[in-house]
Amino acid sequence: MNACILAVGSEMLTPFRVDTNSLTITERLNAIGYDVRLKAVVADHVDELARVIDGALTWADLIVITGGLGPTEDDITRDAVARVLDAPLAIDERIVDRIKERFAKRGLTMAAINRRQAMVPRGAVVLENANGTAPGLWLERGRTAIVLLPGPPREMTPMFDAVVRERLAPKMAGRGLFRRVLKITGRSESDVDANVQPIYSRWTSQTVPIHTTILAALGQTELHLTAHAPSRADAETVLESAVGELLEVLGSAVYCVDGRPLEAVVGALLSDRGLTIAVAESCTGGLLMSRLTDVAGSSRYVERGVVCYSNRAKTELAGVPESLIAGHGAVSEPVARAMAEGIRQRAGTNVGVGITGIAGPGGGTPEKPVGTVAVAVIVDGEARVRTFQFVGPREMVKYQAAQAAMNMLRLILLKSET
Amino acid sequence: MNACILAVGSEMLTPFRVDTNSLTITERLNAIGYDVRLKAVVADHVDELARVIDGALTWADLIVITGGLGPTEDDITRDAVARVLDAPLAIDERIVDRIKERFAKRGLTMAAINRRQAMVPRGAVVLENANGTAPGLWLERGRTAIVLLPGPPREMTPMFDAVVRERLAPKMAGRGLFRRVLKITGRSESDVDANVQPIYSRWTSQTVPIHTTILAALGQTELHLTAHAPSRADAETVLESAVGELLEVLGSAVYCVDGRPLEAVVGALLSDRGLTIAVAESCTGGLLMSRLTDVAGSSRYVERGVVCYSNRAKTELAGVPESLIAGHGAVSEPVARAMAEGIRQRAGTNVGVGITGIAGPGGGTPEKPVGTVAVAVIVDGEARVRTFQFVGPREMVKYQAAQAAMNMLRLILLKSET
Repeated sequence: MNACILAVGSEMLTPFRVDTNSLTITERLNAIGYDVRLKAVVADHVDELARVIDGALTWADLIVITGGLGPTEDDITRDAVARVLDAPLAIDERIVDRIKERFAKRGLTMAAINRRQAMVPRGAVVLENANGTAPGLWLERGRTAIVLLPGPPREMTPMFDAVVRERLAPKMAGRGLFRRVLKITGRSESDVDANVQPIYSRWTSQTVPIHTTILAALGQTELHLTAHAPSRADAETVLESAVGELLEVLGSAVYCVDGRPLEAVVGALLSDRGLTIAVAESCTGGLLMSRLTDVAGSSRYVERGVVCYSNRAKTELAGVPESLIAGHGAVSEPVARAMAEGIRQRAGTNVGVGITGIAGPGGGTPEKPVGTVAVAVIVDGEARVRTFQFVGPREMVKYQAAQAAMNMLRLILLKSET
Repeated sequence: MNACILAVGSEMLTPFRVDTNSLTITERLNAIGYDVRLKAVVADHVDELARVIDGALTWADLIVITGGLGPTEDDITRDAVARVLDAPLAIDERIVDRIKERFAKRGLTMAAINRRQAMVPRGAVVLENANGTAPGLWLERGRTAIVLLPGPPREMTPMFDAVVRERLAPKMAGRGLFRRVLKITGRSESDVDANVQPIYSRWTSQTVPIHTTILAALGQTELHLTAHAPSRADAETVLESAVGELLEVLGSAVYCVDGRPLEAVVGALLSDRGLTIAVAESCTGGLLMSRLTDVAGSSRYVERGVVCYSNRAKTELAGVPESLIAGHGAVSEPVARAMAEGIRQRAGTNVGVGITGIAGPGGGTPEKPVGTVAVAVIVDGEARVRTFQFVGPREMVKYQAAQAAMNMLRLILLKSET
């Protein structure tokens, strides 16, 4: 079954905004077996939206339209759908009453303009919106279902989950498009591909074929496995076995198969083992700590962090001897190690991390070009120190360095388990 | 002149990826007067892409297509365009030579598969790609120009700037769509709108009308002014005057009119005044330091930062008396102030910032619910302390708290100027 997702709103046709509703909707549609074949962002213009809907009706089994259901003249989704389906609009007084109630609860009176939100094309089913005034609408034309949802994600997502999914699922009769994502770090995309291509190339000719895509992102590589299967059980079986084959080849380079970011994976390892961590950062400027503390509950294992941008701060906050900096330079493995050990001792934690490098764009030398980063990780006396050479602008170097430090820690923790 | 931007690639139809090339292209097209009326992401499928191109040919003056120019069978953009325009593909041996040369420079031999990248539809102009093997293509059909560009941004953007822009600009004869963006923080969207709506509503009936959009983003509000004008000079004049009117009403709530993020604005203020800064963060977990150090050259004014997640760390790293924490609680204005003053004294900087709060999801109480954040900023003896109540999940609370702290600092620095 093929789906098309349309986002309505001229503001998403500027250089400043992207449509993100379609990501949420895609995830949910995939889970019940719809394949999203086209996404589009359309201006607030009746003729243009009508033309796009008309085009999609020729091929799509499902058209999901978000946005343009507000009360102003810019909100043209109802009008465009009514025109394409030749379904005249009429006020639904029950919707008016509901909107009035909503306003009354806040001690407000409904403005006359909000009556527009109660306009319903003939034959449409009204979908309740628990978090806003604009109801959703469900229409059918031939084999195609057309779903209109409000634009704000906090209204759209709960409506999808509460009322749209159950209307769609029966059409799929259990058949679905199922995905697994393996997240890999510490190895290059081409290295990963060279290892796994002989494996996944076999999967395309199975009874339940699996399509594999390899995607390089900043600081990691992702393998996306997709199976179209008559039932969830069939899909789970082949995907489980496929993931197993890949894990055998890639081993601990795969940091998760459940979508979590690296900081959550590392956080869970620390938490499970009852370990605490302290961090001394220079070039990453606090990004490692900020990512570690993005995880809810991280205060259980994150004790402290210091950002020692100046040499004096490295000495005062992490106890790095001045002579060490003078002898090896601030960006060096001995200094990274002294930062890790210093912060660990001062904080009294199990884990200490030290990062020092050149994020750029200035500060590089022929021996230590921009992107040179020394990382040290110490876990209860066991130490690892490595120097990396990252490419890209400042923020990319920072991100990759934080990623590399977390991965070094992850690998030490995994090894100590066995 | 109306433009349509198509991104080709099934990976952008998953829940994991968005197309960002279209933002870069929109910015550049707007600057030379094109109005982007439709954006779409299309699967790697010849029939589907051909159908979308066919539809756009009925209304667009310009169709920009990115992606699908690689060497594999998944790369179907050339085929789709050739089919729609009925322009048969033929190998251009000069392109083959150029690709071979590119490989040879790296000591590699061109694979046979790369010959696909030298396929050119009859009548197309070849656009050189300085950063990759896939050349771009330029075709015309009636009034519509069709531009094919490679998908990787590091190839696409330089090609657009080097060869596409100059081909498009003459068509516009100087007429353009010009924009200004005012970034505002510390005031709510509705508050901003109530103040500026009477002003911008007048602009729509000017000789050169200005269209105004108000957009709420996390921790800030943006006002986008757009003018369609016969020349850049005309647009600049009306936009300059419009920005002036808004600045008169909004004053220092506007932190920039040139697109810079808040950390760059604050960094420039510190740098211009020769001031240094040190930061003590609790709930923001290093995010403030990380954002401050995202700015190139920030090592000139950022001395150090500490993330004191535990109470012990607050005492050891920022010298907060244990009795103060016991008396007021870790999340309190006195503790925020002691953190700011402590880190400032220890670092010997002009500026000290202290942030302590409850990022959630746990840790809230009836008196101090999740989202409560106390921020203190001290600049050479002048201190400001405020308690905020932010909404949203953990990362949103962190972001808003960092934003609020930078804005408090910005306002003190601006005031000290006068």
